[in-house]
Formats: sequence, C-alpha cells, structure tokens
Amino acid sequence: MEQITSRENQRIRHLILLNEKARKRRQEGLFVIEGKRIVLDAPKDALVELYLSESKAEEYESALPPGIPAFVLPDALFAQVCDTTTPQGILAVVRQPQHSLEEMIKKEHPLLLALEDVQDPGNLGTMVRTAEAAGADGMILSRGCVDLYNPKTVRSTMSAIFRVPIVTAEDFAGSLQELREKGIHLYAAHLEGSIIYDSADYTKGTCFLVGNEGNGLSPEITALANKRIFIPMDGKIESLNAAMSAGILLYEAARQRRHVAGS
Amino acid sequence: MEQITSRENQRIRHLILLNEKARKRRQEGLFVIEGKRIVLDAPKDALVELYLSESKAEEYESALPPGIPAFVLPDALFAQVCDTTTPQGILAVVRQPQHSLEEMIKKEHPLLLALEDVQDPGNLGTMVRTAEAAGADGMILSRGCVDLYNPKTVRSTMSAIFRVPIVTAEDFAGSLQELREKGIHLYAAHLEGSIIYDSADYTKGTCFLVGNEGNGLSPEITALANKRIFIPMDGKIESLNAAMSAGILLYEAARQRRHVAGS
Repeated sequence: MEQITSRENQRIRHLILLNEKARKRRQEGLFVIEGKRIVLDAPKDALVELYLSESKAEEYESALPPGIPAFVLPDALFAQVCDTTTPQGILAVVRQPQHSLEEMIKKEHPLLLALEDVQDPGNLGTMVRTAEAAGADGMILSRGCVDLYNPKTVRSTMSAIFRVPIVTAEDFAGSLQELREKGIHLYAAHLEGSIIYDSADYTKGTCFLVGNEGNGLSPEITALANKRIFIPMDGKIESLNAAMSAGILLYEAARQRRHVAGS
Repeated sequence: MEQITSRENQRIRHLILLNEKARKRRQEGLFVIEGKRIVLDAPKDALVELYLSESKAEEYESALPPGIPAFVLPDALFAQVCDTTTPQGILAVVRQPQHSLEEMIKKEHPLLLALEDVQDPGNLGTMVRTAEAAGADGMILSRGCVDLYNPKTVRSTMSAIFRVPIVTAEDFAGSLQELREKGIHLYAAHLEGSIIYDSADYTKGTCFLVGNEGNGLSPEITALANKRIFIPMDGKIESLNAAMSAGILLYEAARQRRHVAGS
C-alpha cells in the first residue's frame, strides 16, 4: 500500500474537499464513508479508494477487497481528514448510488417517503435508516434538502444509504405528480391535517410527504397530496421531530401491511 | 438591570460551570436554558436569574417576569456563555424540576418510559419531547443516562422538560420493581424480544424499557420485564435509533388508548 505523509498531497486535499463541499461531491458523484462497519458494508463496485491510518493498517489489510487502491496515512494526518472525532482508522471514497423513480415503484403497492427541504443531517440519516427498517421501497428528496452525502448524514444512516433507493428530484413537485398519476396515494404530514394518521389505509401504494423541521411542508407541495394527515399531540408540544414523524408514519404503514398479510 | 462586562465576574463563571459540568448542575439543582421560547415557557417559580445580550435587552425587557434578577452582557461575552452557536440573546438559570415516582403513577393506567444508560443528549431530549406528545405520564432514567440538564438535551426537549415528570432513579432496578409490584406492566424493547410490539396490550398501566444506543438493555433490567417486545426490521438494519424505538412504542400505546377510548 502506498504511503501518503503530506497534507498537501492531492489525494488528501481531494478527500477534505469531498468531506466539506456538497457541490464537490455532486460534481464528482463521490462521497466519503468512515469507519470499519460502513466500509465493509459498502458494495464492492462502489469503492473507489481506501485510506487507512498507520496504526490500524495491519489490522484491516486482510479484510480489504482486492483491486481497490489503498493508501496509508500517519495517524495524525488520518485524523485531520476524518469528520469524526474518534476515527476508527479506515475510510473510503465511494460512488454515489444511482436510482430512479421507476425502480422504486415497479413493485405492487410501494411504500415511499418524500422529504421537502429537511435541513438536519442527522434527521435525514435517521430517516434513511428507519425507512429501510420499516420496509420502505424508496425516498424522494427535494433539492432543498441537506446533502444526502454529508458525512453526518451518511453516518446516521448506519449503511442504509447503500440499500434504500433514494433520488434527489430536480423537479420535486413534478415527481410527486408523477407518482400520483401512477396511482400512488400521497399523504401529507401536516399540523393542520384533517385525518388522524392511523385512520388512513396505507396498504396500497403510499408515499408520505414530510416537510422541513421548522416550517413543515410548503402549501404547493401540500396541495399535491391526496390527503393531509396529522399525528395527535398531547400537552403543549407543537410538533414532533421530523424524523420521528416519518418513523411513526412508516411504522404505521408497516403495521397495517403486516396485519393485512397475516389476515 | 445590572451590567456585567467581565468574564471573570463570579456570575459569569458560575454560568459557564453550569453549562459545562453535570456535577455542578446536580450539586446546585440548577441548569441553564437558552433562547426566547424556552425562557418564556419556563415556570415562573423555576426562574433564578435572567441574562440578556446588550443588543437584545430592550426587545426582551418588557416580556421578562418581574422580580427575577436580570443582567445585561455585552454581545461578545453573551456569546461566550452560550452553548448555542447562534444565540438569541436571552438565557436563564432555572431550578431543576422535582418529581417522584408516586406522582407519575397516581392516575389509572399510567404510560411511562424508562431509559437505561441512554448516552446521546439529543436522543434523550427527543424522547422527552415525544413522550409529552404521546401523552406519557412520566419518565424514569438510570443514573448512567446522560445528564438530563445537559444544554443539548434541554434544547432538544423543546420545553417539554418543564412538563414531563422525570426522575433519575438512584436505584433503577428497584424503581422498576416497585412499578411492577404496583401492577404496571414492564415491556422491554429488545432485539431478541419474543412478541411483536403491536401485539401487546398497552391500554393498562404500561412502562416501556429502552436501553443504551449501542448495547440495548442490560440482562439485569431485561429480566425485570413482564414481556420482551421487538420492533420488526426489514433489510439489513440491526437496530433503530433509541429515540425512534421509544417514539414508535409510545405512539403505538397512544394509538391503542385512543381506539379504546373511542370504541
């Protein structure tokens, strides 16, 4: 494995840019993953380059997939290119997965989650993780969402980023319209929703629309929905965390689908 | 209002210690809240001292409750004592709410959440916020949980910290035992649970046990539960976020209770 010792090395500068700049990630179709688990979980054909810290190189070397360029960095330099405060000594540059709306809706009764302008990287990552767990078939993000390949988002997905089909829609409203035309019911999670979330039927093709943490869904996107649903809240709470709302809705859909399948 | 201009002022040093040290907060039974919303939401009798930034003093002055000592700080000094990166120019020292197990279980069929060694401040705060929204009657925390009065936790509760009765149990297992003896059913959220979470009945006295983010519940605490429940997970996800698990369980209980009440 090649050694890199200088922060001025081109690959190191490239790594730092990929971690820091969403635009760089988008231009190149690449992102960075950190930590043993996610690197070993990543699809082999997504891996572009591997980086190891000097003190961990020996430990990881035998587990590395063959044929991928690998580089060893002094621990101090490795820590500098990491986004985490306690680096595990392994990271990789990977290709961004490519998915399409068509792929998400090819099965009967797909379960989808569409997010408008979600801003918190941890929230977005948690939603990807929860979507996989709840059996969702895909996610659609508006351009105004935080970058999916932000290091904190990637980390919060717990590798689900490689398994849940996700598209960032250039035309978010248009994509939702398309889903609706294909018979998928759009349910807008809205504080002024007219029906309690658990009284709608999510066993057919379903897409939940969840909005920005502070402002919820825009009127334009809300208007596209077949129904506006709400999650009842006791006490003086004005809204749930956006990821929590998405999780409660997805798990209600999963619950209904399990009961239909079992009946 | 008194002006404070030096970082060496005793009150300023005290504020910084309260923000940084859980032990200090515990010893004095105090904590710090930041931001207009939570300061105005705080019970008046909990307020000990108010601090304003110079540029915001005029704006907030008329909204301040009377009789509470208030101090004005230059903006730069105010920013130094804040835990947030974009301070709103108002913070307060407040007394920690005091609650008891008895208080939480005095109504019929209480709904409770008990947390063992939850470590992430944002997760804990989100659970408090979600517990209030789902209509929970209280929370019990093990001594190993992150400090409830950590600034990040307080922020994530969205003021629910003043409304949800919460106790940190010196003897966590003993408290759970006590609940069980009083007829409250303990449901341990466990990856190796024997029943699906939505097939248990949560309309009677219910306490969900949720464990640490990485390790789940300890065998000792799991053994105290009446039942071990699990949330089904699709794909390759090994676990849900701890706050997400708690939210899904609390909202399943709320759903069942709503349906019983409505039938």
